[in-house]
Amino acid sequence: MAIITLTTDFGLKDHYVSAIKGAILSRLPGATIVDISHKIEKYNLLDASYILKESYPNFPEGTIHIIGINTELSNSGGYVLLKQNGHYFVGADNGIFSLLFEETPREIREISPADDRELSFPVRDVFVKAACELAAGTDFNIIGTPKDGLLERIAFRATSMGDNIRGSFVYIDSYGNVTTNIDRRLFEQVGKRRPFLIELARHSIERISKEYSEVPEGEVLAIFNSSDYLEIAMRNGKAGSLLNLKINDSITIRFL
Amino acid sequence: MAIITLTTDFGLKDHYVSAIKGAILSRLPGATIVDISHKIEKYNLLDASYILKESYPNFPEGTIHIIGINTELSNSGGYVLLKQNGHYFVGADNGIFSLLFEETPREIREISPADDRELSFPVRDVFVKAACELAAGTDFNIIGTPKDGLLERIAFRATSMGDNIRGSFVYIDSYGNVTTNIDRRLFEQVGKRRPFLIELARHSIERISKEYSEVPEGEVLAIFNSSDYLEIAMRNGKAGSLLNLKINDSITIRFL
Amino acid sequence: MAIITLTTDFGLKDHYVSAIKGAILSRLPGATIVDISHKIEKYNLLDASYILKESYPNFPEGTIHIIGINTELSNSGGYVLLKQNGHYFVGADNGIFSLLFEETPREIREISPADDRELSFPVRDVFVKAACELAAGTDFNIIGTPKDGLLERIAFRATSMGDNIRGSFVYIDSYGNVTTNIDRRLFEQVGKRRPFLIELARHSIERISKEYSEVPEGEVLAIFNSSDYLEIAMRNGKAGSLLNLKINDSITIRFL
Repeated sequence: MAIITLTTDFGLKDHYVSAIKGAILSRLPGATIVDISHKIEKYNLLDASYILKESYPNFPEGTIHIIGINTELSNSGGYVLLKQNGHYFVGADNGIFSLLFEETPREIREISPADDRELSFPVRDVFVKAACELAAGTDFNIIGTPKDGLLERIAFRATSMGDNIRGSFVYIDSYGNVTTNIDRRLFEQVGKRRPFLIELARHSIERISKEYSEVPEGEVLAIFNSSDYLEIAMRNGKAGSLLNLKINDSITIRFL
Repeated sequence: MAIITLTTDFGLKDHYVSAIKGAILSRLPGATIVDISHKIEKYNLLDASYILKESYPNFPEGTIHIIGINTELSNSGGYVLLKQNGHYFVGADNGIFSLLFEETPREIREISPADDRELSFPVRDVFVKAACELAAGTDFNIIGTPKDGLLERIAFRATSMGDNIRGSFVYIDSYGNVTTNIDRRLFEQVGKRRPFLIELARHSIERISKEYSEVPEGEVLAIFNSSDYLEIAMRNGKAGSLLNLKINDSITIRFL
Repeated sequence: MAIITLTTDFGLKDHYVSAIKGAILSRLPGATIVDISHKIEKYNLLDASYILKESYPNFPEGTIHIIGINTELSNSGGYVLLKQNGHYFVGADNGIFSLLFEETPREIREISPADDRELSFPVRDVFVKAACELAAGTDFNIIGTPKDGLLERIAFRATSMGDNIRGSFVYIDSYGNVTTNIDRRLFEQVGKRRPFLIELARHSIERISKEYSEVPEGEVLAIFNSSDYLEIAMRNGKAGSLLNLKINDSITIRFL
């Protein structure tokens, strides 16, 4: 039976999330529904894309991911169902897909509200319908109509220049660990096993740890997270606030 | 397999919610359990009834809704299982059902704790038992004993007088959108397509929007929500706090 | 189909919890996954053990409980899968099991990461693997390797001396109800139905209530909770903050 995941900025108090689940179960009894997160910062596509990007590859191929953020039709390029990396995604074409994927999706279907009434809760009325049709076995290529491109939002990517890598902070988790957009591949490619300095505003770090507990409590460390992105952390947390690191601030690695 | 939903003020940290789920799965392996909300304001029946009222009709008929708020036996008219609008509800007869339904339920069964020990966690010990019996196929009419009436709590309803509608605010969601108890039917019946003024304490609104994005950011708008109740909102949220609107405050629509 | 529960300090915003669920569903389509709590106070084993201890006995025997807190390998005695009281538990040997169980577990298997990469997210990569193997039918006794003892952390237990019981506060729930480590059995054994005084810093209580509503609003009461531990509460909540009771503070019952 299909798995459908939900990523929204709806929060956990209001009725919105359970209304969606009820709508799914009404169309597809026995569906497996998994919450990715409903505590996305309101209207923040970068936040949504980071969390979904870290989460979705853990699900089996064929999983359908519903994205409920910034879904105003007139503020977007329409509603879409698309296939990428073996997974399906349903959401508003508001730029989130360019933040979510390195490669531009090619298999895109545009899905439309049946009438104006569906505009007030499109996640429940439009997205759920498409997701359930697909989950029930309808061929992807006959849902909605074909669509060519998607809105682009520029995601800052880490870049290298000579012996330096320049990146930025993209997410601060609930432990205060701060993730960068610098991945292990770029680090190894530019670094070639040379010594280095990771330069923050008021700190520098000279080595990569394998575990948080490698350093004494209260000390700053750098570690590749489970997705192979460089993370700045402190043992027992709070690196973000204690070091005053902010989303989009830059970080430099200088190889010596 | 039956769907059982949970609406409580238990919050998400403590063990209460998972204890209930464990009890359900012990009695009914394979049950589909859906959280409606556990972040109901503590002891607030109005809050619980609003969220459940907006959510439950999205579920398939036959769904069983467990309500875990204000469940002290001696503070209520007893524990009940009832059938209304094709759905089942289990909870304490504390007035919530009069807030939840426009029409008084007629099919009511009283369910009783087996002993005093069940009084300390009746949702797990009494409500779950009745819900699982029903879900397992026991006839509604042989669970517990018949019961005639339910406690009434007066829900303020919107009223019309001449060319005016007078309503009040019933819920503020996590975006700061403020829902009223004025529905589209009353609005159209009194308004007869005439121009109107929606009068708030310090603002008035002259039209109904179809989407939040119809107005510039930061501007106040009125919109019928997905349940056809009038909602006061601001594009990108926070109408409630910025306009200082409070639950139970009144709102007037004057037709010209 | 197996039930797998999750108890972590991961919070509900980040991707961690859903990553685990995706990993479980990838290995075991159709698994029933239940959240016990993800709002455990960060790094707080006592908090985790209390919530899990109150919750897990509600699940059917054979349920597998994954514990995701303080999972740094080098800070623990290794990762373990163990069987106790008919349930299975997977976690780091960091002392939590001595807080969770009165009797020392005897059936313990040590499970190991396949490589260093699994150290950055062992709950997803090591714990889920063991849980799913077990759930899929692999014999407990051939998973991992046998292990003899577990790290001990001392849990303060209530003690009696003469006519007194001395205990402490172990948990404050979201209503402000304060649970002690004094259970009904000890209370009855020492008390022998004599009158008594429950002595708090600035209050004393002379009787045990059966329901919160037995006392007027705002008054302090003592009640045995659904697990038969003594709890200090106020009708309509907030005993913890109003009486300034703190975790680990002591409480005395003096029988007269």
